[in-house]
Amino acid sequence: MTQSVSDPTGLHRVLDRPLVLPQAAQRLDTRRELWPDEVRIRVEKLNLDAASYRQLERTHTTEAGEVDGDAVRAAVLDIVAARGKMQNPETGSGGMLVGTVEEVGERSPLGLRVGDRVATLVSLTLTPLVVEDGLERWDGRGEQVPCDGYAVLFGRSIAAVIPDDLDPDLSLSVMDVCGAPALTTRVVGRYQGATVAVVGAAGKSGSLSLVAAKEAGAARTIGVVPHQGEADLLTGAGIADEVVIADARDPVALRDAVVRAGGPADVTVVCVDVPGCEGGAILATSDGGTVIFFSMATSFSAAALGAEGLAADVTMLVGNGYTPGHADLALRLLRGNEGVRRLFERRL
Amino acid sequence: MTQSVSDPTGLHRVLDRPLVLPQAAQRLDTRRELWPDEVRIRVEKLNLDAASYRQLERTHTTEAGEVDGDAVRAAVLDIVAARGKMQNPETGSGGMLVGTVEEVGERSPLGLRVGDRVATLVSLTLTPLVVEDGLERWDGRGEQVPCDGYAVLFGRSIAAVIPDDLDPDLSLSVMDVCGAPALTTRVVGRYQGATVAVVGAAGKSGSLSLVAAKEAGAARTIGVVPHQGEADLLTGAGIADEVVIADARDPVALRDAVVRAGGPADVTVVCVDVPGCEGGAILATSDGGTVIFFSMATSFSAAALGAEGLAADVTMLVGNGYTPGHADLALRLLRGNEGVRRLFERRL
Repeated sequence: MTQSVSDPTGLHRVLDRPLVLPQAAQRLDTRRELWPDEVRIRVEKLNLDAASYRQLERTHTTEAGEVDGDAVRAAVLDIVAARGKMQNPETGSGGMLVGTVEEVGERSPLGLRVGDRVATLVSLTLTPLVVEDGLERWDGRGEQVPCDGYAVLFGRSIAAVIPDDLDPDLSLSVMDVCGAPALTTRVVGRYQGATVAVVGAAGKSGSLSLVAAKEAGAARTIGVVPHQGEADLLTGAGIADEVVIADARDPVALRDAVVRAGGPADVTVVCVDVPGCEGGAILATSDGGTVIFFSMATSFSAAALGAEGLAADVTMLVGNGYTPGHADLALRLLRGNEGVRRLFERRL
Repeated sequence: MTQSVSDPTGLHRVLDRPLVLPQAAQRLDTRRELWPDEVRIRVEKLNLDAASYRQLERTHTTEAGEVDGDAVRAAVLDIVAARGKMQNPETGSGGMLVGTVEEVGERSPLGLRVGDRVATLVSLTLTPLVVEDGLERWDGRGEQVPCDGYAVLFGRSIAAVIPDDLDPDLSLSVMDVCGAPALTTRVVGRYQGATVAVVGAAGKSGSLSLVAAKEAGAARTIGVVPHQGEADLLTGAGIADEVVIADARDPVALRDAVVRAGGPADVTVVCVDVPGCEGGAILATSDGGTVIFFSMATSFSAAALGAEGLAADVTMLVGNGYTPGHADLALRLLRGNEGVRRLFERRL
């Protein structure tokens, strides 16, 4: 039934027929023995995706409005037992995990060593997982799940060693959004002295993207936030050349705000997780410019039809969460910038 | 109520408050008089978007299974009268129109002259339209709607003059997909001797993209089609270096087919309008490569999470239907390639 040769994408652990990718699979093979390019992690904590946890919480709230923590815990155990991975069947989402490297296959390309404390940067939705302690240390409340068990990484998985010099929760919080500054660095570097607008600039991915843009040579950075409270926060952090308030869902308001602050932008980075920001981001960007969509609320057709309807010659990128070296870059940006570090620390 | 100064995006004709872009508006101002940067077109024919027409047809089918053409016609007239544009409220889609330039505002940047026969390449969903003949020459069956009336183009609209040397229906059919070959040309030109895979290669946008890729310097083009019938068609057209059959929704099959034909690809162009092709397109593309998604069935989150889950360092582009000069490029490619021309002509 299973393949004897491993595939870097983890296909050899997919039990579904016809074969699908691990993320799309109903069920993964969680055998403890490793294929030569795999790594096994002793799990210490699961970080459930926020949307997934909220769905579980809603489903298991009593009539009196109390969250039934035992029922939430049982639901998570059932999912992991049935699927061999933590992927909420309703939301489709997973999360990440923290643990210690337990065994490294002889042909693993990940560069990990036994004993390394790591966070996985690929989703739990495609990571083989076995829970061994019945989650007995978790009360079923909150997204942070203390856990004893093991997980398996494939040849093409991504895991980052948690640095010694930072609070582990701070590191995780940075790694969670490290794709955005990495791609921003790459795109801004293609322009000469770019004007860069970041929409949702006081958030985690937004603030790191602002700092990344400046380091990559941006001549002017414009941070767009929704209200005065975030404007004060961002101004206090000192990481944007200009701070402007605009509703990103209002295309005309967003365009006008960015233009008044020195735009239109050569590069616009959308980091705000609300639907309907495509038109404004396109209008705020110059011809020949680039929009990077990092929000999962982005609508593909709204972006494609919006640009066509506006005859806008802009390059639109689907924000890929993976760029080589992304975790190291994001941690370095945080270490080197007191303002962005304060923004992160106040969220812990 | 309305603005006295025009905006190139057409905001001055939006009657909704708060103000939204013309495409999102419930109602446009269809006054006959032009703002200085506008153009008025005498309409000859509407081409309804296929999804929109199918929805109208379904809604107005009698119990006996007959399409009630009068009811379909009445529905279109009602929409245009209520909204000042032809945008199906259910599907959100519009279509395009053909007509003759009737008046050109003194500051129009579109370069059109009175008497030019044109096709609009911006959607009907944002084009002010008045129907003056009650659509009396249309029986309510089919997407081609003979029509007398007028439409207005904005400063940033796009219209292409229909060439004299080609069948007008052939020109329209080419212009309908001209964004794909234009963006393919631009992206392939950034690589040295690229390997280019086109998924859905026997279709309109796919076949033009193959020819565009070759002209832009691709060293090898791979056309992916779903079955033997299309493989024969594509082989007969002689526009792909390699023709392979694969189900684009099966990531492993798509990857393996492209690799066997000389891949992975530096550039993968997705032109097939079925959901679930994101993973395969990513897997079929080399690290450092680019995937251009031209299918409206693309899921933003499937692309973003898919690439991250595969640790794939690929650039993913939202296929923008507008690139300057796109219509001229596509018509030139068609004129210069007998194979692609035959593929288009057999669809008329």
